[in-house]
Amino acid sequence: MQFNKIVLTFSLYILCGMVSGQEKTSYVNPMIGTVKMGHTFPGACVPHGIVQLSPDTDTIPHSINGVYQKDTYKYCAGYQHDDKTIVGFSHTHLSGTGHSDLGDILIVPVTGSLKFNPGTADKPDSGYRSRYSHDTEKARPGYYEVVLDDYKVKAQLTATERVGVHKYTYPEGEVQKILLDLTHGIYNYDGKVLWASLRVENDTLITGYRITNGWARENYTYFAISLSKPIKKYGYVDKEKPKYSGFWRKFDLQNNFPEIAGRKIVTHLEFDNNASAPLVIKVALSAVSTQGAIKNLEAETKGKSFDQIAAEATAKWNKELNVVDITGDIDKKTMFYTSLYHTMINPSVYMDVDGQYRGIDHNIHQVEGFTNYTIFSVWDTFRALHPLFNLINRERSTDIVKSMIAHYEQSVHKALPVWSHMGNENWCMIGYHSVSVLADALDKGLNIDKDKALEAMISSSNLDYYDGTGYYKKLGYVPVDKNGSGSSITLEYSYDDWTIYNTAKKIGNQTVADAYQKRALSYRNVFDHQIGFVRARLSNGEWKTPYNLLSTHGEGFIEGNSWNYSFFVPHDVKGLIKEMGGDKQFVQRLDSLFTMHLPDEFFAETEDVTREGVMGNYVHGNEPSHHIAYLYAWTSQPWKTQYWVREIMNRMYRNSIDGLCGNDDCGQMSAWYIFSAMGFYPVCPGTNQYILGAPYFPYMKVNLGEGRYLEIKADKVSDKMRYVKSVKLNGKPYTKAYINYDDIKNGAELTFEMSSTPNKKRLFNEDEKPYSLSK
Amino acid sequence: MQFNKIVLTFSLYILCGMVSGQEKTSYVNPMIGTVKMGHTFPGACVPHGIVQLSPDTDTIPHSINGVYQKDTYKYCAGYQHDDKTIVGFSHTHLSGTGHSDLGDILIVPVTGSLKFNPGTADKPDSGYRSRYSHDTEKARPGYYEVVLDDYKVKAQLTATERVGVHKYTYPEGEVQKILLDLTHGIYNYDGKVLWASLRVENDTLITGYRITNGWARENYTYFAISLSKPIKKYGYVDKEKPKYSGFWRKFDLQNNFPEIAGRKIVTHLEFDNNASAPLVIKVALSAVSTQGAIKNLEAETKGKSFDQIAAEATAKWNKELNVVDITGDIDKKTMFYTSLYHTMINPSVYMDVDGQYRGIDHNIHQVEGFTNYTIFSVWDTFRALHPLFNLINRERSTDIVKSMIAHYEQSVHKALPVWSHMGNENWCMIGYHSVSVLADALDKGLNIDKDKALEAMISSSNLDYYDGTGYYKKLGYVPVDKNGSGSSITLEYSYDDWTIYNTAKKIGNQTVADAYQKRALSYRNVFDHQIGFVRARLSNGEWKTPYNLLSTHGEGFIEGNSWNYSFFVPHDVKGLIKEMGGDKQFVQRLDSLFTMHLPDEFFAETEDVTREGVMGNYVHGNEPSHHIAYLYAWTSQPWKTQYWVREIMNRMYRNSIDGLCGNDDCGQMSAWYIFSAMGFYPVCPGTNQYILGAPYFPYMKVNLGEGRYLEIKADKVSDKMRYVKSVKLNGKPYTKAYINYDDIKNGAELTFEMSSTPNKKRLFNEDEKPYSLSK
Repeated sequence: MQFNKIVLTFSLYILCGMVSGQEKTSYVNPMIGTVKMGHTFPGACVPHGIVQLSPDTDTIPHSINGVYQKDTYKYCAGYQHDDKTIVGFSHTHLSGTGHSDLGDILIVPVTGSLKFNPGTADKPDSGYRSRYSHDTEKARPGYYEVVLDDYKVKAQLTATERVGVHKYTYPEGEVQKILLDLTHGIYNYDGKVLWASLRVENDTLITGYRITNGWARENYTYFAISLSKPIKKYGYVDKEKPKYSGFWRKFDLQNNFPEIAGRKIVTHLEFDNNASAPLVIKVALSAVSTQGAIKNLEAETKGKSFDQIAAEATAKWNKELNVVDITGDIDKKTMFYTSLYHTMINPSVYMDVDGQYRGIDHNIHQVEGFTNYTIFSVWDTFRALHPLFNLINRERSTDIVKSMIAHYEQSVHKALPVWSHMGNENWCMIGYHSVSVLADALDKGLNIDKDKALEAMISSSNLDYYDGTGYYKKLGYVPVDKNGSGSSITLEYSYDDWTIYNTAKKIGNQTVADAYQKRALSYRNVFDHQIGFVRARLSNGEWKTPYNLLSTHGEGFIEGNSWNYSFFVPHDVKGLIKEMGGDKQFVQRLDSLFTMHLPDEFFAETEDVTREGVMGNYVHGNEPSHHIAYLYAWTSQPWKTQYWVREIMNRMYRNSIDGLCGNDDCGQMSAWYIFSAMGFYPVCPGTNQYILGAPYFPYMKVNLGEGRYLEIKADKVSDKMRYVKSVKLNGKPYTKAYINYDDIKNGAELTFEMSSTPNKKRLFNEDEKPYSLSK
Repeated sequence: MQFNKIVLTFSLYILCGMVSGQEKTSYVNPMIGTVKMGHTFPGACVPHGIVQLSPDTDTIPHSINGVYQKDTYKYCAGYQHDDKTIVGFSHTHLSGTGHSDLGDILIVPVTGSLKFNPGTADKPDSGYRSRYSHDTEKARPGYYEVVLDDYKVKAQLTATERVGVHKYTYPEGEVQKILLDLTHGIYNYDGKVLWASLRVENDTLITGYRITNGWARENYTYFAISLSKPIKKYGYVDKEKPKYSGFWRKFDLQNNFPEIAGRKIVTHLEFDNNASAPLVIKVALSAVSTQGAIKNLEAETKGKSFDQIAAEATAKWNKELNVVDITGDIDKKTMFYTSLYHTMINPSVYMDVDGQYRGIDHNIHQVEGFTNYTIFSVWDTFRALHPLFNLINRERSTDIVKSMIAHYEQSVHKALPVWSHMGNENWCMIGYHSVSVLADALDKGLNIDKDKALEAMISSSNLDYYDGTGYYKKLGYVPVDKNGSGSSITLEYSYDDWTIYNTAKKIGNQTVADAYQKRALSYRNVFDHQIGFVRARLSNGEWKTPYNLLSTHGEGFIEGNSWNYSFFVPHDVKGLIKEMGGDKQFVQRLDSLFTMHLPDEFFAETEDVTREGVMGNYVHGNEPSHHIAYLYAWTSQPWKTQYWVREIMNRMYRNSIDGLCGNDDCGQMSAWYIFSAMGFYPVCPGTNQYILGAPYFPYMKVNLGEGRYLEIKADKVSDKMRYVKSVKLNGKPYTKAYINYDDIKNGAELTFEMSSTPNKKRLFNEDEKPYSLSK
C-alpha cells in the first residue's frame, strides 16, 4: 500500500484529535482516487450538494484548434494528485466520471502584479496558477485546505448544498486580491463559454452567470458572491474584442464600472488588507437566476462564519455516514467510509431553496412534493448505487426517481435519463437503464406513481431512433454493421426490458408484461451457440467473422469484451448457463475469467481502468462485470463468490491516493464495495433478491431508517476466514443463496459463521437459488 | 410628389372598398419611409405589440471578417423598398431607428430543392431568397401581403401583440416547405447567435429559443410555433460543427429527430400539400421561456383563423387611430394617420400574458399593476412622443413610465433607460432624458410614485462614470478633450437637470431644487459670448480653436452642428436670447438657420438624414432642432413659427415611399408632425405649456379619454392661409403664446382664425410669453 504524505497528513489529523475518533468523517479520506483513473476530487461538498468546491490542478482543453487533447480525460474531476500547481478553486465537479465537464466559476486568491491567464504547468510563472505542496493540503468531508505557495495564501474551503465558501488568509500587509476567471472550465475549448455576465451589486455583493456549451450541451450557472470585506477596486479583462458596436466603449472597464458581459471575461478585485484579516467569500449557485442564487446564499449562509459553515458541513456528513456502524481495522474502515462518502456526492440537488429548477426543456419549473436531483450516470449507477439508496436512503431515492420522472415528462423524446446533468441529456453510454432504477424503486416499495412509472419505462424503451432500438425491436438484436456497440446494447436492452416486464406483471398489466417478457429474451439472439459466447451479429443475421473474444473495439462491445459481456444476463442466469453449455462449463468459464491472462494488446482496449483494475480477464474498473463474481450462486460452486469478491475488495479498493482501480463513476464502484462488504449484492435490480457473498467486517449495523436496523455479524471473518460455513437470519438457520428485501426491510440480524475453507456442502436446491426468468 | 405603384395599389385598395372609407386604417400607408432614411418597415403588427412580422429584403452583416459594413445601417428595419428580393419574414423589427438590430426567427415558405443560405441580392438563385414585385405587395396596419415569385407562394402576414401569423398559399400540387433560419438576423455577424435551440414537440407544435449578442447585448427570444397542418418530414442543418463531443452524433438530424441546438441552425419542414390548402403558421414570442411563448400563443390565437386575427388587428388599429378625427385631403390625412401609426409601434409590450418579463438584470420578474414596455429610444422620444402619449394615451404612458422606473430599480447603475431594448441598456446617444419623460408624466398628472420618480431622476443624473457626468458636475460642462460630444451633452444635461429642478420644486424638495436649478444653467458654460454660439470647450477652460460652426464632428457635437445645437436651451429661452445678444439678433439667427445654405461638405456630416431633411441649415431629420421653429414664440416675431412649421410639414412629410426625410426614430419624427398638425408643440417637456403654432387641418377632434375631447378648428387653413389672426379658447379670446395642459385636459375647443398674412399685432406681453427659467 502506498502510504505517502497525504495519507500521513490525513492520519496525523485524526491522531491530533481534531475530530473525534468516533466521528465517521474521521474515516473518510477524500484523497483516495485523486490520481490516475479514480477521477474523484478532494475538495469540499456536503452530501449530494450541487456545489463541489475543489482545486483544479489543470483543465486541458478538449480540443486546441480542432485537435482533440487526450489529457482532457485525465481532468474529469479537475484534480490530479501528481500535479505540482493549482490553477484555482472552482465550484462544480463530477465525481469519478469517465467524461469531463463543469469546473464553473473559478476563484484564485492572488497577490502582487496581476496575471490573467492560468499559465502552464511547466511554466507556472507564466500565469496566475500557483505551486503548492501536499504537505499543506488537508481534506476531509466538507473541508479542504491548501497553501498557494506562489502567493503565500492559505486557502480553506467548505460548502453548503448550494454555496461554496472560501477563506483566504493572505500574508500580513499584502494587498488582498482575487481573480474570478469566467473563462475557466473543465472540458474547456475556445468557445465553451457562450456568454458570461457579471454585476457588482454593491461593494460586498457580486452577481452573474455564465452559459456554457460543454459536455452538458447548455449549462446555466448563475451565481451570487458575498464578500466579507468591501471591494476597494476592481476591473475586467475581456479577452475577446466585443463584436457588437454598442456604446460600451464609453466606459472604462478597468475602473470600478459595475457590469461586464461577454464570452471571455476575467475579473480582478482588490480589498483593504484590514491588518490581514482573512477574506471570506461565499459563492451561491443557481441554475435559475441570480435572484435564485441570492436566495440560496441567504438561506444557507446568512450570518454564518466560515467556521460555522465548516462545522455544519462536517455534521451533515457525520449524520449521513452514521447510517452504517462497523468494526474493523482503520484502513478497511477508511476504505469503507470513503466509499460511502463517494456514494453521497452525485446525484446532486438541482433546485433553488424555493423549489425552482431548470428542467430538461430549459424552462423553469417549480417542484411539487419532491427535491429535484441531477447528474445521472445511469449506465453505471443502476447496478448498485440506486439499489443502495433504496436500502439506506429511501427518501432521497424517492426524490431521485421523481426527478427522473420529471425529466421524462419534460423530455421532447418522452424518455427517462440516459446520462443527464444540469438539465441536459448527454446520451452517454448505452441502454435505457433508468427503467431499472424505477423498477427497483417500485419493487422496494418507494412512494412512486406506479402507472406513471410504467408509462415512462415503456416510452423510454421505444425510441426507434435511439441507439439501435428500432433494429432491436425489428430484428431482436442490434446489428453491429448498424451500431458498433450492438452486442452490448442487445444484452442491456434485454435486461432493461425484463425490468419493464416484471414491473408490468406486478402492476397487473399482462399485455405489457407478455410483450416485454419476449423482449427480455432478446439476449439469446446474440449468443453464438457454437462458441457459447455473445458474438457480434450482422443485420443479415450472420455472425461477424472473424471475431475475437478478448477484443472490445470492433466486436460489437463497449467497455468490456465478449468474455466479460457474455455474462450480462442478470435476469436470466439459468438461461445464460444453458447458453454457455451447462453448470460445469459455466463454472469453468467463470474461473477462467478471473484467472486467465488478458494480454496487453487487449488491456489497451479497456477504458477508464488501471492495470490493477483487471484480475485475469475480469475487468472491475468498468461496470459490465460488477455482478459476475456473484453468478456462482446459481451454480454448483457458490463458495467461489466468497473467494473472488474478497479478492476484488482487497486488490481493487485500497486506502491510498491511487486506491481506485478505475473511475468511481458517480459512486457505482463504491456502492459495489458497500454492498459486497455487507455480504450481498443486487445482481438483478428489480428483483427482491440480494445475492449472498460474505461479509467483509466482523460486525456491521446498517440503519434502514425509522428505527429499523440490519445487523450483519461475521465474528471471525478475515482474509483467511473468508468462507461462509452457515448463515442465520434472526437466529434461524438460513439456507438460500439470496436474501429477500422483504426479509430485512423491517430490521433483521444476519449472522454468518465463517471458515477458512469453503463449505462445499452449502449448496442450494433449485428453490433456494436466485431468480431467473426462465426455469 | 412621387406617386408610384405602391401608392397606387394602396389607393386602389381604398377605392375598392376593402375597408370602409371611414376606417382610419384606410388612411395609413405603411410603405411611407421604407426607402432611404425612414427606416420604417412595411410588415404586420398591432399597436405597441412586441411582434413586428415583416419582410427582410436584406440584412448586411455589421462586419465581415472584422471589417465594418456600412450598408448594415441601411437595413435597420430589414426592408429597403428598392430591393428586388425578399430573404424571408422575421418577427421583430425596430421602427425608424438609426441603429439596427433584431430580425429574429426568420421563416421562408419555399418549394423545390432546398437551399440553406439566403444567397445574395445580385445572385438570388444562389440562396433561398426570392424575387418579388411591388405589384403583389399590399400593406395596411396589421396586414402585409406579397408573392414570392421564385416559389409562386403568396405570403400573407398578420399579428397579435405577441404572435406573428403567416398564411402561405403554395402552387397547387407543390410539396409545401418552410425554412426556419435561426442564423438570420439584422445587425448580424458571425457569432451574433450565442445559442439556438429547437424542439419539435409534436407534429403541429415547435418550441425553441435563441440568445443573441447584437446591439441588444443579450437578447432572449423564446418562441412557440403552431402549424395548421401536421409536419410530414423535417431536418436540420447545423452550419457549425458542434464543438462538444457529446453523443449527439448517435442521431440522424436529417430524419425527424425532435431536437437540435447550436449556434448556426437552419431547420426545414415539409407538409402534405392537402390539395394546396394554405399553410397557417402562428409564431408566439416570449422573452421568458418557451412555456411563456406557449401561453402567449394560446391566449392570443387559440382557435382563431388567420382572417379572424387579421380582422382583429385591423380593429385594434382603428380603435387606436380613432383617437383623432380630422378633415383634410387624402394625402395629408394619409400622412397624418401614417404618422399616428408610426407613433404606435414602439415602445413595445415586453411581457408574457401572465405578466412575467425579463428585466434589465436578466432575472424574470412579475409585473405588479402595470404593463411592461421596452424599446426606449429616449434621446429621440422625450421631445414629443412621450408628451403625445401624455395627451392621448395616458394609460399606456403611465405603464411606460412605470416600466422605466422598474428598469431603474433593476439597473446595477440605478439609472433610468438611455437607449434600452429587450432588457438591455445600449447607452446609445447622449443625455439622461428619461428624467424628462418622468417629469412630463408627473406634470401631466399621471399616476406615478412621485418620490420614487425623483429618486430615480436624481440617481440617473449622478453616474460620474457615464458620458462626462463627472466632468459636468465638477467643471459645469463636459470638455471636448475628454468627450467628443461634450458640448451637445452639456446642453442636454442642463435641460435634463431643469426637469429635476422643476420636479423637486413641485414636490417641495427645495434642497434638490436649488442644486439642480444651478445645474440647469450649465449651458451657459459652453456659450462663447464673443461669438454668441455654443463652442467646444476644453478641460483647461479654454475654447477649442479653431472652430467651425457648421461642422459637427470634432466640434463637440453629435447629430447637429453649433448652428442647430446652440438653440437647445428649451427650459431657458430667455436666457438663451440673452446669450445670443437679444431679441433682434436671436430672430435674425433663427431666420438665417432656415434660409442659409449648408454646403455639401457639412451636410455630409449630418447623420440619418436625406438632403430633403435639411432646410437651409435647419436639420429636421435629426432631433436636436425639433423645437427650434417654435422659439419665435419668445420673440417679437412669433408668426414666423406659423410659416416655418408648415414649410417643414409640407416639405419633409410626404405621402410617398420616400416621404420621410430622416429616421422616424421610434415615432419621434411622427409625433412632431402630430403635435404640429394640432397647432402646438411641447418645446420644454416638464412644463405645463404647449407652444402655439398653427393648425394644419381645418378641423381636428382629439380624444383625451374618459369622454373628454379637444376640438381644434381652423376653418380656412391652407398653405396660403397659414397665419393665425386670432385664437379663442372655449369661445373666449386667447392671447398667450402657449396653452396650458390644464386648460385643455378636461376637454376644450381651440379656434384659430386664419389669414394669408401674418398678424404682426398678435404679440405677446412678457406674462403671455412661454416659460423660461431665468426672468
